[in-house]
Amino acid sequence: MKDKNIVWHNHSVSQEMRHRLNDHKPAVIWFTGFSGSGKSTIANHLENELYKLGCHTYLLDGDNVRHGLNRDLGFTHSDRVENIRRMGEVAKLFADAGQIVLTAFISPFKSDRAMVRGLLPEGQFIEVFVDTPLEECEKRDPKGLYKKARAGEIGYFTGISSPYEAPEDPEVAIDTINDSNEQSVARIIDYLREKEITRG
Amino acid sequence: MKDKNIVWHNHSVSQEMRHRLNDHKPAVIWFTGFSGSGKSTIANHLENELYKLGCHTYLLDGDNVRHGLNRDLGFTHSDRVENIRRMGEVAKLFADAGQIVLTAFISPFKSDRAMVRGLLPEGQFIEVFVDTPLEECEKRDPKGLYKKARAGEIGYFTGISSPYEAPEDPEVAIDTINDSNEQSVARIIDYLREKEITRG
Repeated sequence: MKDKNIVWHNHSVSQEMRHRLNDHKPAVIWFTGFSGSGKSTIANHLENELYKLGCHTYLLDGDNVRHGLNRDLGFTHSDRVENIRRMGEVAKLFADAGQIVLTAFISPFKSDRAMVRGLLPEGQFIEVFVDTPLEECEKRDPKGLYKKARAGEIGYFTGISSPYEAPEDPEVAIDTINDSNEQSVARIIDYLREKEITRG
Repeated sequence: MKDKNIVWHNHSVSQEMRHRLNDHKPAVIWFTGFSGSGKSTIANHLENELYKLGCHTYLLDGDNVRHGLNRDLGFTHSDRVENIRRMGEVAKLFADAGQIVLTAFISPFKSDRAMVRGLLPEGQFIEVFVDTPLEECEKRDPKGLYKKARAGEIGYFTGISSPYEAPEDPEVAIDTINDSNEQSVARIIDYLREKEITRG
């Protein structure tokens, strides 16, 4: 072990120390938008681009969360609120660990998103509104969920039988109709550079 | 953006890619032992030493979890089981992100620890038994909790009014009576090197 004779530090590894190790700052990049809007696709592309820049990232989405940590939760209103609460808390832990966390949840309610923002230090919550109109999402319907929702087979479906409260002042808004995925990802990275979260 | 014209990768950033970026493998270093046994102290020292080796780590303990993610949980048996389940799932997410996670929970039940082990890929769960005898922990009583438990002010207190099921075959056993913290930490790091989780 190096430095065996150095005085023991009783303090924890700090965010400042993690920042020095990682050469980027922590952040929570919180994607919100309708089902089918492109949240996961863009988050995935963004994560790959951040990897190329040497950033330490993690993507939280339904796939790695609903079958694990949140397996005890269903889709009632209170379970959805708890789902977002836990994701906010987990995102906070990852940010505390110095990582750039990306989340891809519909997260339709302003109050839930505000709650997560409130958990984090100023500037660490970056709301990315994937502003694809409902009509377009329903036309794409990549998982056939809108069809089922229209047929009444899925209840509380955002945009059909449950409201979506669009962000009024998101850090970044994405237009998937007019911009390519590459352009959308570039705009988010520009924002991260402007805020000095990433360099390179 | 570098590589702007390269074909988009639709796959996620993989564990192999994270391993290349970090230059160490992910692991969950799960400390278990009585209250006052020294779990948090040793975990903290270990995290500082791993930082010096350039490892990306995170320490999950009561402090950053009970007031956040698990704030809805109390201390009933089922809440304790749920507490450990969530910590296992969160540790799994961190390991999936390529990090070395350290956890410092009493985690008295074999079944709970086995459950967490079962969540993780072979070799990623490293059980560290902080084998300080109950008598010694009660003598130290750093937070005055044993005194309260003996007075009946705290229920289901491990070792006093609730059992502790010691690991039979932990990856590492720590003897805080005969070994210094430095020696204990060095033994864990030796284990991590032997398993090629860390180098340096």
